Amino acid sequence: MTELIPAPRSVVAGSGEVRLTGRTRIRVGRGTEEVGDWLRTVLRQATGLPLPVGRDSGDADEESIALALSAGLGPEEYRLVSGPAGVRIEGGSAAGVLLGAQTLRQLLGPDAYRRAPVRRDRAWAVPHVTVEDGPRFRWRGLMLDVARHFMPKDGVLRYIDLMAAHKLNVLHLHLTDDQGWRIEIKRYPKLTEVGSWRARTKVGHRASPLWDDKPHGGHYTQDDIREIVAYAAERHISVVPEIDVPGHSQAAIAAYPELGNSDVVDTASLTVWDTWGINANVLAPTDDTLRFYEGVLEEVLDLFPADAGPFSPFVHIGGDECSKDQWRESDTAQKQISNLGLADEDALQAWFIGHFDSWLAARGRRLIGWDEILEGGLAPGAAVSSWRGYAGGVTAARAGHDVVMCPEQQVYLDHRQAAGPEEPVPIGYVRTLEDVYRFEPVPAELTAAERARVLGTQANVWTEVMEDQGRVDYQTFPRLAALAEVAWSDLPAPADRDFTDFERRMTAHYRRLDALGVGYRPPTGPLPWQQRPGILGRPIDGPPPAR
Amino acid sequence: MTELIPAPRSVVAGSGEVRLTGRTRIRVGRGTEEVGDWLRTVLRQATGLPLPVGRDSGDADEESIALALSAGLGPEEYRLVSGPAGVRIEGGSAAGVLLGAQTLRQLLGPDAYRRAPVRRDRAWAVPHVTVEDGPRFRWRGLMLDVARHFMPKDGVLRYIDLMAAHKLNVLHLHLTDDQGWRIEIKRYPKLTEVGSWRARTKVGHRASPLWDDKPHGGHYTQDDIREIVAYAAERHISVVPEIDVPGHSQAAIAAYPELGNSDVVDTASLTVWDTWGINANVLAPTDDTLRFYEGVLEEVLDLFPADAGPFSPFVHIGGDECSKDQWRESDTAQKQISNLGLADEDALQAWFIGHFDSWLAARGRRLIGWDEILEGGLAPGAAVSSWRGYAGGVTAARAGHDVVMCPEQQVYLDHRQAAGPEEPVPIGYVRTLEDVYRFEPVPAELTAAERARVLGTQANVWTEVMEDQGRVDYQTFPRLAALAEVAWSDLPAPADRDFTDFERRMTAHYRRLDALGVGYRPPTGPLPWQQRPGILGRPIDGPPPAR
Repeated sequence: MTELIPAPRSVVAGSGEVRLTGRTRIRVGRGTEEVGDWLRTVLRQATGLPLPVGRDSGDADEESIALALSAGLGPEEYRLVSGPAGVRIEGGSAAGVLLGAQTLRQLLGPDAYRRAPVRRDRAWAVPHVTVEDGPRFRWRGLMLDVARHFMPKDGVLRYIDLMAAHKLNVLHLHLTDDQGWRIEIKRYPKLTEVGSWRARTKVGHRASPLWDDKPHGGHYTQDDIREIVAYAAERHISVVPEIDVPGHSQAAIAAYPELGNSDVVDTASLTVWDTWGINANVLAPTDDTLRFYEGVLEEVLDLFPADAGPFSPFVHIGGDECSKDQWRESDTAQKQISNLGLADEDALQAWFIGHFDSWLAARGRRLIGWDEILEGGLAPGAAVSSWRGYAGGVTAARAGHDVVMCPEQQVYLDHRQAAGPEEPVPIGYVRTLEDVYRFEPVPAELTAAERARVLGTQANVWTEVMEDQGRVDYQTFPRLAALAEVAWSDLPAPADRDFTDFERRMTAHYRRLDALGVGYRPPTGPLPWQQRPGILGRPIDGPPPAR
Repeated sequence: MTELIPAPRSVVAGSGEVRLTGRTRIRVGRGTEEVGDWLRTVLRQATGLPLPVGRDSGDADEESIALALSAGLGPEEYRLVSGPAGVRIEGGSAAGVLLGAQTLRQLLGPDAYRRAPVRRDRAWAVPHVTVEDGPRFRWRGLMLDVARHFMPKDGVLRYIDLMAAHKLNVLHLHLTDDQGWRIEIKRYPKLTEVGSWRARTKVGHRASPLWDDKPHGGHYTQDDIREIVAYAAERHISVVPEIDVPGHSQAAIAAYPELGNSDVVDTASLTVWDTWGINANVLAPTDDTLRFYEGVLEEVLDLFPADAGPFSPFVHIGGDECSKDQWRESDTAQKQISNLGLADEDALQAWFIGHFDSWLAARGRRLIGWDEILEGGLAPGAAVSSWRGYAGGVTAARAGHDVVMCPEQQVYLDHRQAAGPEEPVPIGYVRTLEDVYRFEPVPAELTAAERARVLGTQANVWTEVMEDQGRVDYQTFPRLAALAEVAWSDLPAPADRDFTDFERRMTAHYRRLDALGVGYRPPTGPLPWQQRPGILGRPIDGPPPAR
């Protein structure tokens, strides 16, 4: 039981075990009914045991798994006691109880993650143990880029389950980009009719000569989105949608050419982008564009209700990597700068983002964007995803904004996991499992008050070179397990972290990932079919900058 | 409720409805506990209603869904009554009750197929109706070729759920072929280490000049297989494994060169095949090869227990398309012919298959193979998959063998669904939804006694040109819905079948497939990203031969 990932605050082992048998019951206290239901479903499918659910009487019962709320614990804190009185999981809220139930699943062994029993008449046991636990950070996230390569709905639901098993609680869905628009918007059907597919796709880095000539596309219907959001909420995961503006918008412009800078380029001839990089075709900074995206966001707010989870009020509006070239050439943009009395194109971007900042705030929602949105001032409630190193996060925290730390040098999981030539499509720095394990989300230079602004951290999975679930699994795992521990556990300073112990616990965890069917990178390197020989990447030599 | 697919024997509609509410209970009678559990899990996730499960008292209860066995019904027959006394589903066995529960799910509407509630406070209702139902055929199958393109475990579990929703009950898993070996065999680890991946893959028909230079591979561990078999068994689906011999074996020979005709070709230099077609590299017809495959099959029998379902005693040994060229040239093969006193190479193949026929029979199992195995005489218990038209099935039935009808001209779902140039990678005949709907599994020339030998039918999904789940979905659906109705419903002669009514019911069924996230072919033709322009297929013009 010392093989838990992420590591709990405190584990005190006993010497016996609680056997799960045909007589074992799940007993739920008030407010834990849904968790009990989830636990019963997953354990029932894995074990085949009947595990009936009943009311918790509060009495000791050696043949029960009791779930209860406890007023003395924080919302995501839990206490799991396995002993002569059975198993009891108490949490400060239903979320805490679910987190404890995830720990219980780990204690039962890898087969607890399977969807049907693989052996008849095997014994199931929870070792006697007391686990006291709670998270270091409130925001423990994964960003999935479903725009560059579409992930079908069942793949997203699978990732939600994988996140929950790792005690992660925020799924940031990157739904729109130059290469695809993935969410149905009823009033603008062409966003998906036109914007959700491309005729071909660059294979590898943009400098690669290779193309995949298969069309690629797909999108989530509004009901699919509702299903994803509800499925995540049941697992106490908030889904934060990203509608990326004003850059990364060629798919939208291909669908509605009037959204682009049509006085500079023939936007009517643009198609969904088929290669990678920073794109010059950005949104026209007009009032019409604002109205269009207000229409988009009205539907988004309906699909992602603010009360679905603690971070559900957030809407990510991107704001990254917006080329200003077309705005410099565009009479329309220049007139807008003049009419608004702005200094330059950067101020125009700030005006654009600021509009949605106010618009969202007026609707009780909070804007979050990539750290470029700091360039121009933000409403007090806005938050920042710090991706260009730590600097954006430091600036934001000092300015009183909440921050999610996801520096590209540390937790961009498209970056390669090893230096070897067999590593598939090598992008960026070498970021090993150990590197991610030693990632520290809180910039050292912050004061205590500023540190409180760090909501947490997330790993970002950009999918330019991940064409299917197998590639996403490979890049994401095992490193997401290290990120999960960084986000959850009270680890010491990076240099003092016990990576050897983490690796030891990973030995058990790989068996869990096997049972879950995750195509992770093995510690010995990629399997032959996980390699991508001959595809040009863009490796960066040497270590990343210190900060 | 007249929109059920497959069509039931009898539907009598009433005028009211049974509402599902927070007070609705599922009540299970003896022997229906597991079905109740399954039903509760799927309805709970889709509706969010608590739906507690309790014992069936036999009393009418307008707020319950009661499940019970009924001695008067055949094993897969069921009666579903929705009326003032609530919903009651009786079946001749647990399988029958599950089939009725699948009908209930259809009656609840498309959102009943989602994995989380998409609308809060919506009403759920079952119209008042009496459905009396049972299958025409006992064997209602789908063959998935996971050898040509590997389908990850979660994809297979997904297909099991899709099959169950269509009242199909046999999953024939084509686990080995020239292009890949997909099942872990402990005593022969190289079958998967070497045999489960290839360096590149032909794109399109073998005459196509295109290659996908990505390595492709993957396999199921033995625990994965156990999980698949158990998951299917819970849904009353038998999994029939296919280990294809003595042809279609280059992946095995690449792993263990001694399995090939090493006196004719340098088998040590063979790799897993990367293109399509009939392969000259077949197994050496030696006693050593028999011993090797006995070792394989010993593990297969352990992984696929005979008591997991009504068709679980069956083991498919392929037997198709075995080129005799190498055997003609091989001294070893010729000596074997001489030693065994056989007439020729065809008799040698019959000896080879006959060995496993006896070997399986001695272990209480039944051999099934492609219709080539008829050429040489079979043990009485052996069965035949009739794929080269109806002829093999006719011969087999007349010789007293059980038959599964799956003629390539009718139900090979790799064949194209329409004549249009936009149809992806056009292979074979045009086989529309209507064509499959009018497929008749029972050859007209059989006597009544011979007809009883037709166990049923299955669709075969060969995946040479289906590189991922999206392509498999596209080729399989909606045609599998038509095959399901052919296999289940008491349809009239092909010309008299009411395809217009089927299409009407499909309108509702497409919404179910949407909720399930199935990437089916829309009635209007492929979506842009479902197309595969520029990839050479091998269309055959005109209609298929009459028989």
